[in-house]
Amino acid sequence: MRIITLTTDFGDKDGYAGVMKGVILGIAPQAVVVDITHQIDPQDRVQAAFSIRSSFRYFPDATVHVVVVDPGVGTGRAVVVFEASGHIFLGPDNGVFDLVRREEEMRWLVAVDNPDLFRHPVSNTFHGRDVFAPVAAHITNGVPPDQLGSPMAPADMVALDYSPPRLLNKEVITGRIIDVDRFGNLISDIDADQIESLRHGQPDPSIVIALGNHRIDGLAVTYQDRPPGSLSAYIGSRRFLEIALNQGNAASRLGIGKGSAVRVSVKS
Amino acid sequence: MRIITLTTDFGDKDGYAGVMKGVILGIAPQAVVVDITHQIDPQDRVQAAFSIRSSFRYFPDATVHVVVVDPGVGTGRAVVVFEASGHIFLGPDNGVFDLVRREEEMRWLVAVDNPDLFRHPVSNTFHGRDVFAPVAAHITNGVPPDQLGSPMAPADMVALDYSPPRLLNKEVITGRIIDVDRFGNLISDIDADQIESLRHGQPDPSIVIALGNHRIDGLAVTYQDRPPGSLSAYIGSRRFLEIALNQGNAASRLGIGKGSAVRVSVKS
Amino acid sequence: MRIITLTTDFGDKDGYAGVMKGVILGIAPQAVVVDITHQIDPQDRVQAAFSIRSSFRYFPDATVHVVVVDPGVGTGRAVVVFEASGHIFLGPDNGVFDLVRREEEMRWLVAVDNPDLFRHPVSNTFHGRDVFAPVAAHITNGVPPDQLGSPMAPADMVALDYSPPRLLNKEVITGRIIDVDRFGNLISDIDADQIESLRHGQPDPSIVIALGNHRIDGLAVTYQDRPPGSLSAYIGSRRFLEIALNQGNAASRLGIGKGSAVRVSVKS
Repeated sequence: MRIITLTTDFGDKDGYAGVMKGVILGIAPQAVVVDITHQIDPQDRVQAAFSIRSSFRYFPDATVHVVVVDPGVGTGRAVVVFEASGHIFLGPDNGVFDLVRREEEMRWLVAVDNPDLFRHPVSNTFHGRDVFAPVAAHITNGVPPDQLGSPMAPADMVALDYSPPRLLNKEVITGRIIDVDRFGNLISDIDADQIESLRHGQPDPSIVIALGNHRIDGLAVTYQDRPPGSLSAYIGSRRFLEIALNQGNAASRLGIGKGSAVRVSVKS
Repeated sequence: MRIITLTTDFGDKDGYAGVMKGVILGIAPQAVVVDITHQIDPQDRVQAAFSIRSSFRYFPDATVHVVVVDPGVGTGRAVVVFEASGHIFLGPDNGVFDLVRREEEMRWLVAVDNPDLFRHPVSNTFHGRDVFAPVAAHITNGVPPDQLGSPMAPADMVALDYSPPRLLNKEVITGRIIDVDRFGNLISDIDADQIESLRHGQPDPSIVIALGNHRIDGLAVTYQDRPPGSLSAYIGSRRFLEIALNQGNAASRLGIGKGSAVRVSVKS
Repeated sequence: MRIITLTTDFGDKDGYAGVMKGVILGIAPQAVVVDITHQIDPQDRVQAAFSIRSSFRYFPDATVHVVVVDPGVGTGRAVVVFEASGHIFLGPDNGVFDLVRREEEMRWLVAVDNPDLFRHPVSNTFHGRDVFAPVAAHITNGVPPDQLGSPMAPADMVALDYSPPRLLNKEVITGRIIDVDRFGNLISDIDADQIESLRHGQPDPSIVIALGNHRIDGLAVTYQDRPPGSLSAYIGSRRFLEIALNQGNAASRLGIGKGSAVRVSVKS
């Protein structure tokens, strides 16, 4: 175990992520720390949950993934660490791992409560530095789960305040835009399998996507399939339905952002 | 070979660069990945071409430089890899390496078409993850050019839609602002050698720089050569003509940005 | 010695930090370079001084901390390197290390003037690449202080144009907001010890914090101690007095930013 990833809402100006790396390298000099993102919207646990769910599997097995989006820092919220799909996940017990928990099989889960592994004094506002960084480093050094804390049942983890897409009448799926990427592409929470289940063997053009007052007919393979300036819907690299504007910014053109409803139906 | 650099338009919020690093480290655990920038303006191939041209030579020999500014991802555009000046360059064949090709001698050039080196399934929208990251990692592991794909002639590479500065009557050079840095300094595409050729042995003060309605007399050595609040023109660290405002932001003060014309002439 | 940290005002779009890493790795391939921040406000030496003062101690001993906030680049300002508290500090002699100098004991201090350690030709505008990166790499390779330059007296270092908080009548401390973090938390320059000295053994609720037209009674342990939407003052992770809005952005709500006065007094 050697790679540690960081997913936080710390931004890049205040040095918080750099300080975490300093603490990690002081305990585990061999660690390789990789930033996934520090630009999660402040305290947005749903966005963090989608980010780690969509990123972790591209790292080598045994990577330690640290998520610090932690509005409850300094209160009594628990710290959790678990193994799923050969990866280790560490963060506050506040729902940021809820999507991983729903989709992957968990091998073990521990509530971290061994203060010997923390940096002291533990501040009330920066557990990234005083709890998550040192614990991640100790895991990388080989400290086994039973020395990290007490076993915990997955069902006791805090759930995310988030409703997944719903299939209505086997003909309509309703979901939401969960992210807008740097290119202005709108990323929904409707995944490729859900759309597949909707098709009943019908070809792509029978699918209709509705988003605000806009309607898109058919699934494209990529955004270049439509003329420049046209909208297209396609399955993106995270295997979610995305909406893009070829050579443009769909979010600003449509005035649509995070949280907007998306509806996928089969043309009758 | 151990260092891989990344130059992309992915930004820093979506985790795309982090995922590329995960894929690289899974194949080449010894790789050291260095970000040059992920803030190329979306799909701006000219800006990407200047960025890699101005950065690569400061890395050790045998560094693998990956550029992913790729509006044609998922279409039939080729992937190219070549060696020039002791460095390896990998990216889409869309002009991002055109300035390197014009200025450096190429030792070999290959169109990458060996699917064994890709991550499968290859998505239609994220070749950074599925093509460029794994191929860069395999190169770092020592896979030789002839196993990457088929030889290609440099003349067959896609050219950049960009006209370099022109020398008129041996007395005037016209170029463009190609970048505005974080300090608001305006970076032109007119290089030190072109200005030198204009001088005919005359001293610096005979040079006149015109930019919008503004005129600057003489070349400074650095922006501190002029009083605070004054404009100065000087040869910057990339060896291009730059225009700065001492203790201020030239771009916002002048209302001038990327694409504006710059004219350098000799006072008669 | 193996870790080098970077604290600069280079931003993340221009590739300047990436180029510094290329130069470092060319000289010291074993170096691990960690970004503290590249988002210091352009040329803000006070902000840089607080950033490095608040970050360095979380890195392992013998880390080389490079600060490049350098409005005087290309002029005659000196380059300094020193050891304090087991860490090495390298940067321009312009006050960026003034807070470290005031608080830590210095073991040695040298004015760097050995051109053999620079990258040539040395540009007039980018000493990060041509001076600081190569010198940091050579230090990491074990070049001893006496080969870096000439000994210098700490008292001869350039002082920062900054007045620390003042204690008036043993009952009032006046300080300033020195930073606004990504969450909109207002970070003052009044530290925990100063507040402690004000208390004369009295309990926390006797403290009153005044900021613009706003008044906060008592110190909280963390921002969650107050109801959502309420202001709280507490000792932050850097051991400075901070003001936050629970589940909100204090800076934008109060319209208060860097430089604003803060007054802490004891309720009589």
